[in-house]
Amino acid sequence: MNYRLSENFKNLKPSAIREILKHTSGTDVIPFAAGNPSVEAFPVEDIRRIINEITKRPPATYLQYGISEGYTPLRDYLKADLTAKGLKSDSDDLMIVSGAQQGIDLSAQIFCDPGDVILCEDPSFIGSLNAFRSHGIKLVGIPMEDDGVDLAALETSMQKNPTAKLLYLIPNFQNPSGLSTSWEKRRKIYELAKKYGIIILEDNPYGDLRFAGEDIPSIKSLDREGLVIYCGSFSKLIAPGIRVGFVLANSDLISKLTVAKQASDVHTNLLAQILVHDFITGCDLSAHTKKMQALYRHKYTLMAHGLEENVPDSIKFTKPEGGLFVLGYLPERMDMMGVVKACIERKLAIVPGSAFSVDLEKPAHTIRLNFSTPSDEQITRGCEILGAVIKTI
Amino acid sequence: MNYRLSENFKNLKPSAIREILKHTSGTDVIPFAAGNPSVEAFPVEDIRRIINEITKRPPATYLQYGISEGYTPLRDYLKADLTAKGLKSDSDDLMIVSGAQQGIDLSAQIFCDPGDVILCEDPSFIGSLNAFRSHGIKLVGIPMEDDGVDLAALETSMQKNPTAKLLYLIPNFQNPSGLSTSWEKRRKIYELAKKYGIIILEDNPYGDLRFAGEDIPSIKSLDREGLVIYCGSFSKLIAPGIRVGFVLANSDLISKLTVAKQASDVHTNLLAQILVHDFITGCDLSAHTKKMQALYRHKYTLMAHGLEENVPDSIKFTKPEGGLFVLGYLPERMDMMGVVKACIERKLAIVPGSAFSVDLEKPAHTIRLNFSTPSDEQITRGCEILGAVIKTI
Repeated sequence: MNYRLSENFKNLKPSAIREILKHTSGTDVIPFAAGNPSVEAFPVEDIRRIINEITKRPPATYLQYGISEGYTPLRDYLKADLTAKGLKSDSDDLMIVSGAQQGIDLSAQIFCDPGDVILCEDPSFIGSLNAFRSHGIKLVGIPMEDDGVDLAALETSMQKNPTAKLLYLIPNFQNPSGLSTSWEKRRKIYELAKKYGIIILEDNPYGDLRFAGEDIPSIKSLDREGLVIYCGSFSKLIAPGIRVGFVLANSDLISKLTVAKQASDVHTNLLAQILVHDFITGCDLSAHTKKMQALYRHKYTLMAHGLEENVPDSIKFTKPEGGLFVLGYLPERMDMMGVVKACIERKLAIVPGSAFSVDLEKPAHTIRLNFSTPSDEQITRGCEILGAVIKTI
Repeated sequence: MNYRLSENFKNLKPSAIREILKHTSGTDVIPFAAGNPSVEAFPVEDIRRIINEITKRPPATYLQYGISEGYTPLRDYLKADLTAKGLKSDSDDLMIVSGAQQGIDLSAQIFCDPGDVILCEDPSFIGSLNAFRSHGIKLVGIPMEDDGVDLAALETSMQKNPTAKLLYLIPNFQNPSGLSTSWEKRRKIYELAKKYGIIILEDNPYGDLRFAGEDIPSIKSLDREGLVIYCGSFSKLIAPGIRVGFVLANSDLISKLTVAKQASDVHTNLLAQILVHDFITGCDLSAHTKKMQALYRHKYTLMAHGLEENVPDSIKFTKPEGGLFVLGYLPERMDMMGVVKACIERKLAIVPGSAFSVDLEKPAHTIRLNFSTPSDEQITRGCEILGAVIKTI
């Protein structure tokens, strides 16, 4: 059957990471390729207790249809909390989504027609880039520096694309680079967005995972003009399988996003929303966050040490202060896909940087390593394998 | 702030039902307007027990990221079951979605560019119509007869819209009419779709809720050409708050839908998918279904009796053999919105038929009544109020 698919989907391919992971799903493969938070970080005992308590309530409270905006007590709590933290202004509203991915996807839908432009960090998170591509959106990448996007390149892109609708950014421990945008750059980016009338889509899935350095206020905290859509997630703080995130934005935009959400999946799983509410209001969040950060600090330190010990100095790695990822920069003469394939042959799964490129045809010379999924032994062994592979390439 | 929204979302309004329900959310309002399944029908004890068992398993099994296609044991079970029931062919595959609504929305996305045409029953389910509208899709409505769409009008529409991508149908106990498409018409519709090369999007959220007459095979069971996308739901069989449904279609289409699903929300809540699997494989599904059908039979019978007793013969009502809804046809001279408003003033919430019209500007003369949400007392009292209102209009 020759299906007449939409222009947007005709040529869209499944994520490259996904394809790599398919060939590396054996239990004997070291998982540096995944993007999963550490299972050890999940507050399992609290989750079990809360879920069991929820199931004792009247069935309609957790099993019936809910409203598209989300579970009201959770929305109310988050709005008060984000007001106290200086992120929410009086004109902002908040809705619950099925993971921050849905917030990104629906934001793109309410702003962009096919052919519209979104500016983004290059490289950037493949899940968001593919969501944008699936709506026929044209991506314009801004090169990354150690402290965030190249500001001159950003302004040039804004001038060249005066009708660009959104600027998509992951300011904290970016995926895939692990890099964070400095406070100074956040302020300048906000000013540029204001000057050129572009909405900032700020994605913050990893913000709770800081294990070094000082917290940097979000771009949303600067927003007094309704220019920033802020997407948060409970995938790392609680667990990703529950699929709960939120969007904070001007109330006019939340109204439109609610219409989009209703058309997309009606509402987010109700039990999961109540679980998030009861966890963040009833448990010791500060203690949990610190424990989680200590775990990620330990795992990152182990990987940084392993890379230093085993991998030649010609390969530079980013030094993230949080999150899940390290990006390695290979010399241009080195065959990046050759490195990835040789690693996979030796049972170490890593992701080619090309997966995160805005221009999929452009050669990439980076590899992404994840330190949250592998065990301590796997981290040490994986760094040894990577070092050995690079020495033979 | 004057936002430059997409063409599709600029003028899209929240669902009319939603707006009506906002004004009728008090506990003293009789809920004939809702579309909720009866809480009494939820298998609450089984749900509690299964959820508590799931939380005793290793945390990664229900809290970590899952794959976009869905929980493999659930997919495998459904594929075997749908093969045994004659719905699945060898070239079909199946994916899990966050409610049938998401299956409808993603199917529209993979097939339609803005301006493309979808043919559908008129009236039809507002949630699907709004999903189509949110993608800039042009809707062409086919008038409904008591046994399904008018076949001559359907063929004329196919001829007039040779590039139409999809034909959207709810063959069992349609929302809002409660009407079902006869076996003869299902076969003829399939032949027409084949002749004109249009894909059928078959939505079956209410199929398990038959309380009278004989089961009619689905259109999907006729499909040997890969022409039918079949969307199923667990919202009525188990509970809607869990947001779990599935799509059965040609494997090439499931591949594309998986890419769309990944961009939309990565995957469906994992605990909910395991709950569905463990319920349908481990509980007495036949006994549960019969109990549920008996409850809906009782509620419908009560409403049919109440309408006959109280409402003048000039108002005709559909006689559904299952599902949740009855549609009432008012005489053209009667002010339909006047009836709806007078009912709301007397604390009876009903939905104006205009909400389900393909052409929102066209005057409608119908009202939709739901019998699954109200209690027995509310059904009896609601019919009395409706009768009294109509006599005074």
